[in-house]
Amino acid sequence: MPPPLKLGMVGGGRDAFIGAVHRRAASLDSRFVLVAGALSSNPDKALASARDLGLPRAYPTWKHMLEAERARPVGDAPESRIDAVSIVTPNHEHHPVARAFTEAGLHVICDKPLCLDSAQADDLVRAVDRAGTVFAVTYNYTGYPLVKQARAMVRRGDLGPIRKVVVEYNQGWLATALERSGQKQADWRTDPARSGAGGAIGDIGSHAENLLHAITGLHVRAVCADLARFIAGRRLDDDANVLLRLAPAAGAAPDAEPRGVLIASQVEVGHENDLRIRIHGERASLDWRQEDPDSLWFRPLDGPASLLRRGHPYLHEDAAQASRLPPGHPEAFIEAFANVYAAAADAIVALRAATPLAAPDFPTVRDGARGIRFIEAVVRSADSDAKWTSVE
Amino acid sequence: MPPPLKLGMVGGGRDAFIGAVHRRAASLDSRFVLVAGALSSNPDKALASARDLGLPRAYPTWKHMLEAERARPVGDAPESRIDAVSIVTPNHEHHPVARAFTEAGLHVICDKPLCLDSAQADDLVRAVDRAGTVFAVTYNYTGYPLVKQARAMVRRGDLGPIRKVVVEYNQGWLATALERSGQKQADWRTDPARSGAGGAIGDIGSHAENLLHAITGLHVRAVCADLARFIAGRRLDDDANVLLRLAPAAGAAPDAEPRGVLIASQVEVGHENDLRIRIHGERASLDWRQEDPDSLWFRPLDGPASLLRRGHPYLHEDAAQASRLPPGHPEAFIEAFANVYAAAADAIVALRAATPLAAPDFPTVRDGARGIRFIEAVVRSADSDAKWTSVE
Amino acid sequence: MPPPLKLGMVGGGRDAFIGAVHRRAASLDSRFVLVAGALSSNPDKALASARDLGLPRAYPTWKHMLEAERARPVGDAPESRIDAVSIVTPNHEHHPVARAFTEAGLHVICDKPLCLDSAQADDLVRAVDRAGTVFAVTYNYTGYPLVKQARAMVRRGDLGPIRKVVVEYNQGWLATALERSGQKQADWRTDPARSGAGGAIGDIGSHAENLLHAITGLHVRAVCADLARFIAGRRLDDDANVLLRLAPAAGAAPDAEPRGVLIASQVEVGHENDLRIRIHGERASLDWRQEDPDSLWFRPLDGPASLLRRGHPYLHEDAAQASRLPPGHPEAFIEAFANVYAAAADAIVALRAATPLAAPDFPTVRDGARGIRFIEAVVRSADSDAKWTSVE
Amino acid sequence: MPPPLKLGMVGGGRDAFIGAVHRRAASLDSRFVLVAGALSSNPDKALASARDLGLPRAYPTWKHMLEAERARPVGDAPESRIDAVSIVTPNHEHHPVARAFTEAGLHVICDKPLCLDSAQADDLVRAVDRAGTVFAVTYNYTGYPLVKQARAMVRRGDLGPIRKVVVEYNQGWLATALERSGQKQADWRTDPARSGAGGAIGDIGSHAENLLHAITGLHVRAVCADLARFIAGRRLDDDANVLLRLAPAAGAAPDAEPRGVLIASQVEVGHENDLRIRIHGERASLDWRQEDPDSLWFRPLDGPASLLRRGHPYLHEDAAQASRLPPGHPEAFIEAFANVYAAAADAIVALRAATPLAAPDFPTVRDGARGIRFIEAVVRSADSDAKWTSVE
Repeated sequence: MPPPLKLGMVGGGRDAFIGAVHRRAASLDSRFVLVAGALSSNPDKALASARDLGLPRAYPTWKHMLEAERARPVGDAPESRIDAVSIVTPNHEHHPVARAFTEAGLHVICDKPLCLDSAQADDLVRAVDRAGTVFAVTYNYTGYPLVKQARAMVRRGDLGPIRKVVVEYNQGWLATALERSGQKQADWRTDPARSGAGGAIGDIGSHAENLLHAITGLHVRAVCADLARFIAGRRLDDDANVLLRLAPAAGAAPDAEPRGVLIASQVEVGHENDLRIRIHGERASLDWRQEDPDSLWFRPLDGPASLLRRGHPYLHEDAAQASRLPPGHPEAFIEAFANVYAAAADAIVALRAATPLAAPDFPTVRDGARGIRFIEAVVRSADSDAKWTSVE
Repeated sequence: MPPPLKLGMVGGGRDAFIGAVHRRAASLDSRFVLVAGALSSNPDKALASARDLGLPRAYPTWKHMLEAERARPVGDAPESRIDAVSIVTPNHEHHPVARAFTEAGLHVICDKPLCLDSAQADDLVRAVDRAGTVFAVTYNYTGYPLVKQARAMVRRGDLGPIRKVVVEYNQGWLATALERSGQKQADWRTDPARSGAGGAIGDIGSHAENLLHAITGLHVRAVCADLARFIAGRRLDDDANVLLRLAPAAGAAPDAEPRGVLIASQVEVGHENDLRIRIHGERASLDWRQEDPDSLWFRPLDGPASLLRRGHPYLHEDAAQASRLPPGHPEAFIEAFANVYAAAADAIVALRAATPLAAPDFPTVRDGARGIRFIEAVVRSADSDAKWTSVE
Repeated sequence: MPPPLKLGMVGGGRDAFIGAVHRRAASLDSRFVLVAGALSSNPDKALASARDLGLPRAYPTWKHMLEAERARPVGDAPESRIDAVSIVTPNHEHHPVARAFTEAGLHVICDKPLCLDSAQADDLVRAVDRAGTVFAVTYNYTGYPLVKQARAMVRRGDLGPIRKVVVEYNQGWLATALERSGQKQADWRTDPARSGAGGAIGDIGSHAENLLHAITGLHVRAVCADLARFIAGRRLDDDANVLLRLAPAAGAAPDAEPRGVLIASQVEVGHENDLRIRIHGERASLDWRQEDPDSLWFRPLDGPASLLRRGHPYLHEDAAQASRLPPGHPEAFIEAFANVYAAAADAIVALRAATPLAAPDFPTVRDGARGIRFIEAVVRSADSDAKWTSVE
Repeated sequence: MPPPLKLGMVGGGRDAFIGAVHRRAASLDSRFVLVAGALSSNPDKALASARDLGLPRAYPTWKHMLEAERARPVGDAPESRIDAVSIVTPNHEHHPVARAFTEAGLHVICDKPLCLDSAQADDLVRAVDRAGTVFAVTYNYTGYPLVKQARAMVRRGDLGPIRKVVVEYNQGWLATALERSGQKQADWRTDPARSGAGGAIGDIGSHAENLLHAITGLHVRAVCADLARFIAGRRLDDDANVLLRLAPAAGAAPDAEPRGVLIASQVEVGHENDLRIRIHGERASLDWRQEDPDSLWFRPLDGPASLLRRGHPYLHEDAAQASRLPPGHPEAFIEAFANVYAAAADAIVALRAATPLAAPDFPTVRDGARGIRFIEAVVRSADSDAKWTSVE
């Protein structure tokens, strides 16, 4: 295994939730070591948060960090420049930070959704293309071994042509007006200025879209959306129900265009983080739930359903390589997240060795941009009287 | 317990599936005894089928049965007239048979969906109103004790105002062109002349709509439907995905109109008879699955989820009365079906005693008519470019 | 299908639980029609209970019934003698009633456990051998289709030689001193004079032993038992934990004698009727739970676990024949019970046609006697300081 | 949070399984940083393994490590002495290594079971008492938040006095003669010289005993064991079935001595790592499964069962403090393991601050010694004709 890459982080200080997840994910396999941070948009809090963590290089703002790190030498020495930056701020800061670090030639791991709108997204895609850097978006659920297994099974034709996908992301934590209680996560997620045009559809619906695409390779061609706000005064949707038309995979010839249903809700009381995807092909179907991530149901036309489980030799190598423990020793959220980081590290190491990977196994800036276009299409559809709204 | 009522049956002979279910359901609690039948539209088969069952009174056609039974005396003697008729034919025969027996003053238990279109449905509603007879539609899933429990919990406000309902009916048995194999069930269900305008949406989507209404009391106000036919040459939909707008219950004041999602599919490979409903209110949610019918999840805002189980003293009396066995001695499909028959018997007995029931606990002809309008609206919506299509 | 057989019933009147189960099970498939009954040991209650049910022939005692029925002609006419009697009394009445009816040449369906002790059991075996009659014991759980499937899979070697069986029957309804509340079921089940030497081990442990034997064909050779009474003053065990040594099936050559663990408890709070059996062979294992009876897990050495479900064409014909409804239309307790009755009816009909069945598919008087010996061995073992106590 | 402690490791090099688990667990919360290692009993492999990991201080043997580290200064500087050592060798090396490091005043985290026999165990207890050091045994399953929740519920009396515990640890990975294939884990685990007297009972049965004690506080007073070896030539048990008598908790007054059943098997084909514990009290029961670790069933005498889930505010603070992620973002094996490390770190930090913790929340050397006595008693019992064998 190569020595760990040096990582900086923007956002993720005191009171943040996802910052600590990124830190554990980055270090779980010793692929990254966190050496620098501008952990808050508040400079005092940024420095205090870095002290909490014992970070060697604490910066008051991401601009200070960018400038100071650029001034450092490139290389493997402890004092050399960071290789990559993790961006774990609220959404509205993704674009400026990601663009600046990318242009500086630094690799980026950016939280989802990618940014606020498709203009920003396109700009980032172009910036990454120009810079030739690695840019991963932490659609972390694609990191689960059995998601990779599902993808492999679809690709090798175990299901036949896909007819239908049902993907749902059921949460209940915003069933009350939590944003008025001062809860920080609820506060910015319900604020269009910091979240973008989508509420539930942006925060979790984009995960659902990404999972659908990652497993099936299908694109959402058109959407028909019904968005609701069940809390008086809430400014963004907290419940999204969307019909989908999917662009069939090359080579597929189903008798009808593949259909989809996407549900993303944050007001379904008592549901925790219930992301589930069901994929129905001509010959078999798959069923996976994030809350039971080591299991994958396979249901063929003939014969009984079987329950594929992480860690067994019968799995595809993509799933095998993403697994750390034997069967029945459960892996979970952190490990899946770490798989995104590990894949980004692989790509960075390969790039440094001038042997770029043919097929990096993490969500890219283009996945992020496609997600933004999906969110925008859903929001447009919700405001439209027409049944179908095209994506892009 | 009163002596069993005398029952005749139309349809349900050799090769039929649902006829035997009705017979077992009718007799399970000794509320009905089957004494007469015109069990097929083919007179020879009708008579042979009756012989198979040892029926005392075998008729070649339902018209013969109607005429002969009308000529018999009313009363409790073995030779007296049947009290009620079960109609278990394909859908296109429901209307003429039901109308004729209703006009003759006989009570009717009719399979679902009620008939072919809303003109027939309205005609039946008027006929029943004129005749003053009992008319039950075997939306059998409402017979499950924990469905009655769910209804009671919604009614007494355990969930608060309803925000959202997700009801899905997942099957896979029509994932291939089974109708071309000579399989009788597949044959008539994919034929518009015998099934009506709806395929999956009629056969099972109407169950889903009925379950939604039975538990929540909400009406589907408007639909936005995407229907597919995944088998080349199939004439009716085999996959239906529908967004719903629901008319809020009286007294409810949610911050947004209640939403719904309805999925009905017969091409989801490996799914058996997976009817599931999730009801999300402001304060709690419910989750029930037909394939595990003795269980009902209740998830409140505060505190852990609880799993309500049939047979316990903590259940509402509606659920208690619909139950026969102690907890853990599972009841299932036949018992739920029998509960519809038992409720119809209660209503008939009460009517004979000139003390009609205030609130008969079975799906009525009006439920049947509402179901037909729902099917029609979905089919209209599927052909429309407008997002929303009103029901009625 | 042959015309229904005429059935009498002893016990099962007002306040009884299992009587109604037997009646529904007997009539579910129209294999029996109940025409006579001595439904209580209290003559007044017996007659009143028969009136409740509208029974054509009500008797004050079983002796009256036996005498009167013997006097009737044999044959198919409505007034002819009953073909069989169901014995659904508390255990202490099983032997005298079963013996008398058997000696009179009547077929018997008797509830479990067979009787009070092995002397009675042997006497019944001899009586049945002399009379040549059908004698079924309602170890009803063997009637489940997927229990028959498990048996077929063991027989055809899908598991290889059996190494270990874990069978548990978890209940909680006697976790308090319910017998002191006047609850009738608790009252006689905790009374040695009416129940026999076993409490939980007799009432439900014998079901567990029977299930083990029915599926695997293995005999319990020796037991090591720990019985407890957790309620002050209770006279019979309410919790039984037993190690088993099993006699290997012919042809099997495991490297060690097959082992077993049997748990039967009625004080495990919150457990309803949780009978579960796990069978571990050299090459695969099976797992079945009564509370989810339409499912059977099969876990092979190589490859993923599969979930066998009732109603599919991939099942063995023994399972297919015991099934009435398509997959996903759940069958349950009553249907399994009815399968015991149906198999007894098959045997009676065959005997009347002088073509006795080679392999009747119901628990016989010998199964009942083996069960009694098992209960006695467990009770002896519980009182012994030696580790192992032989059965018989 | 205090700065990370410096950790050394003995064992856990190339080909090892548990070493990587310890490393991830130690570093997950930045409570330890691994700086030194003697990672194999083969000096070349030890050095190569340390190189693989980029360890700053690589030693050929643990004796070299001990000597060299003792020579370093105590303190917080990067070059100062390690604070603690993790021992992750096969069992036979636990005692000499643990004793030597303890005597040198270093804190120890030792894998389970503690050592080979009770003489070694007692020696270690005395050594730890003399040294006054922290000594944690990685019975990692006690680290799960919902195990701590279960313990808290028993302690505060939610279940009433405990009547019965059923703990089972079902695995299938040794169902074939894997040890003859060169698989390293199977090789030493089936070798008495390296594993001790117990096979399955030692490797996983001791986890089960520990879990029972950790949650309930009950001691196993006596055992009645049946051990089997299902593979020809295998030298240690691969299947253990044990009846338990438990010493009632102080203050409890059940009507009978608490009972237990313990199953530990490595030949149950298709079972992965299925550790489950059910605890039955007078008023309620608990049910927890390691393969679904974020869930805990609570079943009270009255009212429905509830499903407690990690991350909710209704949980006890012991469970809350052991949790890192919100509900539905699953935590698993590594996090539970890390909780043992974190608790040991807390104790070490407190000791260095001369404010030792009143109630350290990790399994101690005394828990380890009790486990060894349990294993020895089971092995003695298996060889005995007497039903009960006392522990100690």
